[in-house]
Amino acid sequence: MPRLVLSIDAMGGDDAPEVVLDGLAIFVKRRPDVGFQLHGARDRLMPGLVKRNLLPQCEIVHHDGTISMSDKPSMALRRSKGTSMRGAVEAVKTGAALAAVSAGNTGALMAISMLVLRKMDGVHRPAMTAIWPTARGRCVVLDVGANLEADADQLVTYAIMGAAYARAVTGEANPSIGLLNIGSEDDKGTDTLKLAAERLGDAELGLNFAGYVEGNDISAGVVDVVVTDGFTGNVALKTAEGTARLVAGYVRSALTSSLLAKCGALLAKAGLEGLRRRMDPSSVNGGVLLGLNGVVVKSHGGTDAEGYATAIDLAAQLAGSQYREEVAVGLARLASVPPAEEVVT
Amino acid sequence: MPRLVLSIDAMGGDDAPEVVLDGLAIFVKRRPDVGFQLHGARDRLMPGLVKRNLLPQCEIVHHDGTISMSDKPSMALRRSKGTSMRGAVEAVKTGAALAAVSAGNTGALMAISMLVLRKMDGVHRPAMTAIWPTARGRCVVLDVGANLEADADQLVTYAIMGAAYARAVTGEANPSIGLLNIGSEDDKGTDTLKLAAERLGDAELGLNFAGYVEGNDISAGVVDVVVTDGFTGNVALKTAEGTARLVAGYVRSALTSSLLAKCGALLAKAGLEGLRRRMDPSSVNGGVLLGLNGVVVKSHGGTDAEGYATAIDLAAQLAGSQYREEVAVGLARLASVPPAEEVVT
Repeated sequence: MPRLVLSIDAMGGDDAPEVVLDGLAIFVKRRPDVGFQLHGARDRLMPGLVKRNLLPQCEIVHHDGTISMSDKPSMALRRSKGTSMRGAVEAVKTGAALAAVSAGNTGALMAISMLVLRKMDGVHRPAMTAIWPTARGRCVVLDVGANLEADADQLVTYAIMGAAYARAVTGEANPSIGLLNIGSEDDKGTDTLKLAAERLGDAELGLNFAGYVEGNDISAGVVDVVVTDGFTGNVALKTAEGTARLVAGYVRSALTSSLLAKCGALLAKAGLEGLRRRMDPSSVNGGVLLGLNGVVVKSHGGTDAEGYATAIDLAAQLAGSQYREEVAVGLARLASVPPAEEVVT
Repeated sequence: MPRLVLSIDAMGGDDAPEVVLDGLAIFVKRRPDVGFQLHGARDRLMPGLVKRNLLPQCEIVHHDGTISMSDKPSMALRRSKGTSMRGAVEAVKTGAALAAVSAGNTGALMAISMLVLRKMDGVHRPAMTAIWPTARGRCVVLDVGANLEADADQLVTYAIMGAAYARAVTGEANPSIGLLNIGSEDDKGTDTLKLAAERLGDAELGLNFAGYVEGNDISAGVVDVVVTDGFTGNVALKTAEGTARLVAGYVRSALTSSLLAKCGALLAKAGLEGLRRRMDPSSVNGGVLLGLNGVVVKSHGGTDAEGYATAIDLAAQLAGSQYREEVAVGLARLASVPPAEEVVT
């Protein structure tokens, strides 16, 4: 069997290429069978690869250019030729790699990915995913910011893509899908949501649609996939991050509030270490722009090495799965089912 | 000075009237100077008042009817005459009370409040508030669900009402206002948000507008007032509640994960007790439907006695403040300033 190869934008991210290489080193310990194309400045990458003993797994593809975190996406796109980010994405296009990872400028990565990989047939708007920790494990939330708005058809497309994606990364055979709303009753929400719900419940689409879910249901793990427009999804994701940070601060101050509390924290150290790991954002790092002819994983720009390794995990899982074929089947089925308005009449 | 009187829907809420009366008893210890009109079934209320020694502060206004938590708002509204909820709201209308509190059916309370109290001049859509714990104290978020959508003018109205409300309940003299978006750059967001931002920054409105904020900025306490449409606000609020619950579960399991951790938790008990209080939803209980000719505070239906007392606190603070006069001044100023589109040309 040929080796699974992933392409890496080695210059993308706040602390690139150091964090990228450290992340690679962590991943390679888990999966020594995976190979990498590293896109970036050869003279900056080579010493790091040697130091970390990564040469057996890695090939460097040299590019002079980099895209900075502050570049405007439109500007970055125009000047993207010869950059490490574009090189990494083009490696997926040519088949040199099965998936790409970048911790660089999000807007630029989305623009370059769309230009180079193109949208799949039947996808009007790609959607960005987030993996969300829940009381029962993990769930997938999309769209978390690729598009500001979504009509009913786009929401249905998100559901199809999200279900295939969840199957690939959580192993859940028949992921349940919830549509984010501000109440679970049928009469709640905008006309767009009602139409999307009607369509999602259409048995011919073969989706495991569980109806509306509310904001608190996401963390409760009520469903495996939460579908929403990019504005709402982005606000929800960042609100959850902010809340987790606030509560973590509360916990810290509670456990350092007195000498007795500090002693208690010392005794409970092992348990609290587990808590720290569960709340570590790096454990769920990695977003994927679904709906393209190829997999590109976006790592958080400020992630640490553990987080970068998590993003590579995600790329490897997707590259080894049938998710694109499943999305294609789902979209074809959607195209063959008459739209909900016609079903009603 | 005449006594401040508040009206209470004593039959509203999951555990009414017991929780209501327990909440009153807690509040009365803090503020023995406030009087109450209790709306509900006399025979169910009288023994509870006697038992809690609340007769000096309370007058009962008998009503046979109650509105159940599951009634549809439209149906509840039609049948609302002679119910405790409607009685409590009408007491504000007649001036018998300066503000009302109910833990009953939210939709019904909003519908009855709008019918009885009417919207203030210049308000197209009232907005529901939430008080949000932050790293720096508390902030006000609105709309959290009164309306699904909001245009630019409505968002500006929310900002004016939210600032006056924050002044009344947080004591902040010149509350800063943020507009919830999915990026803080000027070019981010929908046209509605851009237009609202332009208008909010108009110096003639005299608002302390701090620009766009993102979901994580809410808990960080970046601004005193967060303005958004009711759909987004409701999702954000419930997502934050769900996240806080998830993290609380993590903390619990970390501190019971081993005998050593349990011992540690015992030592840190005082600090953890403080943590429990900070995370207690009852500490921020109480939403207000802003924009009516009168104050109605909505308590969470499932709140405990502490939470109910917090909602009464809120009603007393608002009743003793100038917030309605300030809103009227702000709306009049808004009406006198040409809309943003005209300013641009």
